[in-house]
Amino acid sequence: VIITVCLNPALDITHRVPAVNWSGVNRPAGVWARPGGKGLNVARTLHAIGAQVLAMGLAGGATGQAVQSALAQLRVPAALTPISGETRRTFAVADDSSGEVALFNEPGPLVSAGEYREFSVQYQRALAGCRAVVLSGSLPRGLPPGTYAELTGLAAAAGVPVLLDAHGEALTRALAAGPAVVKPNLAELEEIVGRSLSGAGWAAVARAARELRTAGARAVVVSLGPCGVWASTGDGDWRAVPAAAVAANPTGAGDALAAGLAQGLVLGRPWPHRLRHAVALATASVAAPVAGEFSQGDYDRALAGIRVSRDEAG
Amino acid sequence: VIITVCLNPALDITHRVPAVNWSGVNRPAGVWARPGGKGLNVARTLHAIGAQVLAMGLAGGATGQAVQSALAQLRVPAALTPISGETRRTFAVADDSSGEVALFNEPGPLVSAGEYREFSVQYQRALAGCRAVVLSGSLPRGLPPGTYAELTGLAAAAGVPVLLDAHGEALTRALAAGPAVVKPNLAELEEIVGRSLSGAGWAAVARAARELRTAGARAVVVSLGPCGVWASTGDGDWRAVPAAAVAANPTGAGDALAAGLAQGLVLGRPWPHRLRHAVALATASVAAPVAGEFSQGDYDRALAGIRVSRDEAG
Repeated sequence: VIITVCLNPALDITHRVPAVNWSGVNRPAGVWARPGGKGLNVARTLHAIGAQVLAMGLAGGATGQAVQSALAQLRVPAALTPISGETRRTFAVADDSSGEVALFNEPGPLVSAGEYREFSVQYQRALAGCRAVVLSGSLPRGLPPGTYAELTGLAAAAGVPVLLDAHGEALTRALAAGPAVVKPNLAELEEIVGRSLSGAGWAAVARAARELRTAGARAVVVSLGPCGVWASTGDGDWRAVPAAAVAANPTGAGDALAAGLAQGLVLGRPWPHRLRHAVALATASVAAPVAGEFSQGDYDRALAGIRVSRDEAG
Repeated sequence: VIITVCLNPALDITHRVPAVNWSGVNRPAGVWARPGGKGLNVARTLHAIGAQVLAMGLAGGATGQAVQSALAQLRVPAALTPISGETRRTFAVADDSSGEVALFNEPGPLVSAGEYREFSVQYQRALAGCRAVVLSGSLPRGLPPGTYAELTGLAAAAGVPVLLDAHGEALTRALAAGPAVVKPNLAELEEIVGRSLSGAGWAAVARAARELRTAGARAVVVSLGPCGVWASTGDGDWRAVPAAAVAANPTGAGDALAAGLAQGLVLGRPWPHRLRHAVALATASVAAPVAGEFSQGDYDRALAGIRVSRDEAG
């Protein structure tokens, strides 16, 4: 089982409207509500590719209930710890006439120390039977920035590898706990090393990634959007580049990448294989209209087009 | 107990946004979720003025659960019949910078004949101990336009007076069943009698109202927005006019009016008294930012300003 942790999940509501009247009454032509938040997107993608997964995290109120029943309907196994606050909604209005999307993200609940402790107990219990942990997404209000460091440390102590998808202080603090993989994008990597990397060449990216490995991460996979990924691993540095940039819905592509990397980790695949499949999954998920979903055809096509090369420059 | 029937309730979600970006990501400064739909607004207002109320109707899915827990939190007694469809949401984005509000109304569930029958059984059981019924709001998909006629007839058979707030065929069909009060606005009255009444003088409104009484309604209260109401009753024709038009949130004013009329009916108040209090409630609810709510101060002020006069012209 792969545990995906989502401490700040969401109910993602989408309204498709033929032509939005921004100062009047609209009757959406399509309405969707899905479990969201990065950790739950990872869980849904892992479930879709046939991995055994358990979504853990925090959920509260009527919206928390809605998230749990939506997960149950999708048959994604979940054990979310109850909190007294109300799980957040995100609300997207997709305007067919302009192609634009307006997104409204609620702030989410305040989590108490006691609620986090209760989650932590359940998490430690679940670590016993598990093969990997994915920690991903922003921390809810009330949890200190050292939270992912603690959860990474608990997994390490139980001999369970961690894939960490976070940024800023939550990421830097967790490095010393030795996550198996961290997965910053270029902006997040820049934020951590404190210098600009765009246009600085692969050697600069390699040096920055190596700093994160020196700080404790066993591998660093830098996601570069439509350019694929650059990876610094114990088995050398690698690039994986998709055949062509896909212009559709990039939301959730990073979560699909994380899901692919977690599965490759659990299956013990060599790095080139892991990267190829993870980037194919991310590419296919960009082609899908909805985060956490993809079509097998898109996946197969993307897989065929990806070039993986060892990078000797670093 | 006054039964308020809401066959198509909603969860009303409001996001207050400082300055909306209609093609990007917004972080609302304020988020509210409340039970909505006309029948539940009436129930909340009745509860707020101290009347004993029971909200009945249909609710399903996670959103139906959210509506029920919100009613419980407000301590409004409710017995909603479960349905397999998902209760609708309405989503309002209030833009502080422009003062404009965009509203997104989901279509709501399809209700089966069996689900309606189950509701009808519970409704008939509840009629035994009740003093009045308020039927209000649009019918959900799947229910025939004769639904309110049937519910009015069942109440009449049990000796319970009905206040009906509906329009079009649902209203016309129900007249023969003898509702105690119907409460069309001017546009709804025009639709039923099939001619324009705006600017046609009070005598024309009186004639139109009398047609509805001839068809079976025992009293007709025509709501005229900021101009108050015009009533055709067994005790003569009446006008009730507030002191000054209030410019704020007219949503729910009609529901507050219905609540005031229902309470006056149950308390057996003479018509001038009923109209004065109901119009004061509607006026106070216009001054409040949220449907189903009002302040006692606004209510007291509105009550002092209302002029009620007998209309001999008809």
